Formats: sequence, structure tokens, C-alpha cells
Amino acid sequence: MTAIIDGKATAAAIKAEIAEKVAARKAAGLKVPHLAAILVGHDGGSETYVASKVKACEECGFKSSLIRFESTDEAPLDPAVLMAEIARLNADDDVDGFIVQLPLPRHIDEQAVIEAIDPAKDVDGFHPVNVGRQSVGLPCFHSATPAGIVELLRRYNISPAGRRVVIVGRSNIVGKPLAAMLMQKGEGADATVTVCHSHTPELARVTRQADILVAAMGRPGFITADMVSEGAVVIDVGTTRVPDATRKSGFRLRGDVDYENVAPKCAAITPVPGGVGPMTIVSLMLNTLQAAQNRD
Amino acid sequence: MTAIIDGKATAAAIKAEIAEKVAARKAAGLKVPHLAAILVGHDGGSETYVASKVKACEECGFKSSLIRFESTDEAPLDPAVLMAEIARLNADDDVDGFIVQLPLPRHIDEQAVIEAIDPAKDVDGFHPVNVGRQSVGLPCFHSATPAGIVELLRRYNISPAGRRVVIVGRSNIVGKPLAAMLMQKGEGADATVTVCHSHTPELARVTRQADILVAAMGRPGFITADMVSEGAVVIDVGTTRVPDATRKSGFRLRGDVDYENVAPKCAAITPVPGGVGPMTIVSLMLNTLQAAQNRD
Repeated sequence: MTAIIDGKATAAAIKAEIAEKVAARKAAGLKVPHLAAILVGHDGGSETYVASKVKACEECGFKSSLIRFESTDEAPLDPAVLMAEIARLNADDDVDGFIVQLPLPRHIDEQAVIEAIDPAKDVDGFHPVNVGRQSVGLPCFHSATPAGIVELLRRYNISPAGRRVVIVGRSNIVGKPLAAMLMQKGEGADATVTVCHSHTPELARVTRQADILVAAMGRPGFITADMVSEGAVVIDVGTTRVPDATRKSGFRLRGDVDYENVAPKCAAITPVPGGVGPMTIVSLMLNTLQAAQNRD
Repeated sequence: MTAIIDGKATAAAIKAEIAEKVAARKAAGLKVPHLAAILVGHDGGSETYVASKVKACEECGFKSSLIRFESTDEAPLDPAVLMAEIARLNADDDVDGFIVQLPLPRHIDEQAVIEAIDPAKDVDGFHPVNVGRQSVGLPCFHSATPAGIVELLRRYNISPAGRRVVIVGRSNIVGKPLAAMLMQKGEGADATVTVCHSHTPELARVTRQADILVAAMGRPGFITADMVSEGAVVIDVGTTRVPDATRKSGFRLRGDVDYENVAPKCAAITPVPGGVGPMTIVSLMLNTLQAAQNRD
């Protein structure tokens, strides 16, 4: 029997725990955590993600602010306007943490935007100070998706310690920070981590060595049954929109794992949707709560 | 035949190249790079390292400054004095880069010291801003030992691209930053990287998968012939002082690799001493030159 790792239920449980803590904060006369999000333009995925974040804030009892800037090819947003808003949020004592939803329109330098955010309010964990502190194992805001995966493993009593973890995909928001987290010393880590990518020859030979296999390259259905060992734990980070005429939206989300054929071989697997996705948003909520606590 | 990777000769060649660049800078009316080093107390290893760095500065035509603070159990250095000196060096326009030689006496918070250094002068590459920028693949000061290894491979035309690199040891100054460098996209990287450590079961099974094996755990002679595949490239980062009555100093340096038995199996191997060690110092020189160029 394959255990289905239910990220949706786990995320709901964590949000309920956060809401309790927020209620306790209120009762103690402490401020309610406040997350702000900046959204530039009208990227479809970004609209959905930001809406989910605002909803999660409500569920957690947080205050949330959504700041929208229009930007089109004809009337591109002046990057200076965005930078001024970031400076304002850095200085705003009521805001505990904030994010700038990525991707940004091409004419804006994303890295400059990330580095303009006060690391103490950088609840996405993308600022080099947080990335660097994570790498050396110091307290920091962990990037949301890797932190969500680590928490999911923890809640399902799947210890990575002494296990071989193979991560396919070396992005700055998933593969690299997850590798950094899982190779640290201590509980919830201590794994032997391998990072694979487009330049890895004989990929299936490497992925078959995984006790815990993480698929994070954004190629729907790429991980097939022959690439997975019997009894492995499979974490699917992929969330690609594929056309689906049977859906009202016209698309559905598909993971990087050929779920139907891979799942029967696994000890445990995350579905898409309802696996890693909800945990990513919950990590952002946990970071925001932490940011508020840091400022008490 | 096993190729001996001669770090000493390579380092000498690079220092000569740097010296030429410094001469050209002088001729162009630009300032001579200036590296300052702070040494606290009288740790034997630290004295040796700092002396080597001062000597390397001379060979490169750099200006160097050595700032010493006494610290004993009876009269420990006030950390505030050290912090004030760091602030002075941050502000000193003549100093392009500086290092605080580690380890520091136990009563001083090393991480606080590291974070007090201006990232733009942090030529050891230990500040979280540099660690984080390295992790995401942005220009930064790379930590010296990993940068020295990458440069050594490059000069010996050993491309890590598409090769399996296994790093044994997950320290913040070697294992982790080397993994970060070698898993990046682009030339001199693109490797499939695995990081092993004390919690890795069946270590020999993992190390035998290495096309390039990096030993960086500080356990003399730990990597034995049965742990290495025929034809592998072996990089030995270990430099442990072991007692040796036949030496005037009373000790000799020993690597993490059982060189005598491992070398015959290898395509190429670094000796200890004369392998990675000299390249570490040369990386610091390259970072200092870069720091000076950044400030032109």
C-alpha cells in the first residue's frame, strides 16, 4: 500500500495551529501578524498564487495587504515606483513581512528587487542574507517550498537522516535551498543529498538510488516508474498547467511525476494538486508569524 | 599513470599572473591591492596561515597589513575592541579587502564577527551576503578553498560538467560552498553533486560512484583504496598536523586520503602538502585583486 502524503490536510492543520497562536497573541495584547504582497501586472499564475496567499492569511487570522501595480508592454511600470513601495514597506512598522510576487515583467531587475527587501521582512527567504544564513545553518527565513517539504516529511514521520535524497532540478527557489536544508546537521536533516539536473547523464541510475526522490524541474510526467526504486518516498514539486477541456478553467495542474505508474512502487508519494503546493503557502504563513514574533 | 595535480606550481603560476596585473595597475596609475588580516591570540595553525598569506601578498605585489590582538584565558580580548577594528577597516579607503583569521578564542562570537565585515571587503567570502549570492549563482567573493579547487580543475582541464562529484564533509568553508559552486549552471560547473558526511551509511558505496571525489572531513587517511573507483580524480582537502619526530617542527601535514594506496587507482590526485593548500591562499589573492578592481 502506498501512503498518500496529504499536503492539503497537513496545511489545513498547520493553519489552524497558526490561527490559535494568533488568537493567543491577540489575547496577550500582541499585534496580529501582517503580510503584504506586491503584485505587478496580470500574470495568470501570479494572480492565483497571490489570491491563495490572501485567503491563507484570512484562515490564519493575519492582516493582509495586496498592493497592485499595472504594467503592460505599452505602459511598463517604472522600476523606481516599485523600489519606492519596497522602501515604504521596509519602513512600515505595521508590516511584519512582505513579498513581491515573481516573476516580474522582464524590464525589471528581479535580483535588485529581492535585495531591496529588508532581510528581516523577507518572508519569501530570497534575500542573499537569508539564503546565506540558511546555507550555513543559522536561523533565517527559509524559502517556502523547501521549508514546506521538510515540514511535510516531519509531520509524516519520514526522517531524512541517513537516507539518500535525490533532488532533480537545481532552481534557486526549490532544488538548491532544499539541498542546503537537508544536508544540515540535526533533526529533520542529516541526509546524503544529490542534486541532479539537465546535465546529469544516466539520470535514471541516479534517481533509482533515492530513498527520497524530489522532482522539481517543471516537466510534467518526466519521472517515470523505471526511474524510481521500490519503496521510495516521492515528493512532486511540479505544478505545470496543462490544457484540459473538461475543466471550466481549461487547464489542470500536472506534476513532474507520472503519478499513475510511479505511485504503486512508492512507500509514500505527494499528489498534484494537494501535495507540496498547499505546504508552500503555509510556509509563508509560518515565516510571517515568525517575523511578527521576531519583532515583539 | 596517475597525474599528480600540482597545486604548488599552479599557485605559483597564478601568483605570477597576479603580479603582472598589479604591475599593470601601477603603470596605469591605479592603486596597489591592499589586504589586511586580523590575528587574535597565538593559535599555531593560524600563525602559519597568516604568515603564508602575508608572504603571498608580497609575491603578488600587494600591500598587506597584519593587525594582532593578544588574547589569553587570563586577559581575554574585549570583543568590542575587535568590532571597532573591523569598523575601522570597513571605513578605511586604502584597504580593499580584509580577513579575520579563524578560529577565534571561544569567548568571541565568530558569526557576529563575520557579519560585521562589509560584504564588499569580505575576501574570505564568509559573509551571508556572499554565501547567499554564491548559492544563487551571482557574482560574489567565493570562499577560498572551494574556489581554489574549481580553479585547479580548470587549469588541469578536468571538467566537472556531467560528472558525478562526491564531496565527503559538509563544513561551511569547504563542503557546502564547493557543492554550491559545482552544481551551478555553466563552465567549470554543471556537475551532479552529492554531499556525504558522518551520517551517511555505506559511505564507500557512495564514494565509489564518484568521477571526482573530494575528501574534506579532516580525518587523516580516512579515504582508503576500496572507497575509490578506478580512474577517479581525487581532491584531498585534509591538512591535519600529525606528530613526526623526524621533522624539525615535530609534525607533518597529512591529508584525508590514504595517498600511497589510493593514488595508483586514480586518473589524477592532489598531494598533501602541495595540492589544495597553496590554491586556497591564491584564491584569497584573486579575491583581493577582484576587490581592488571592484573599487576602481
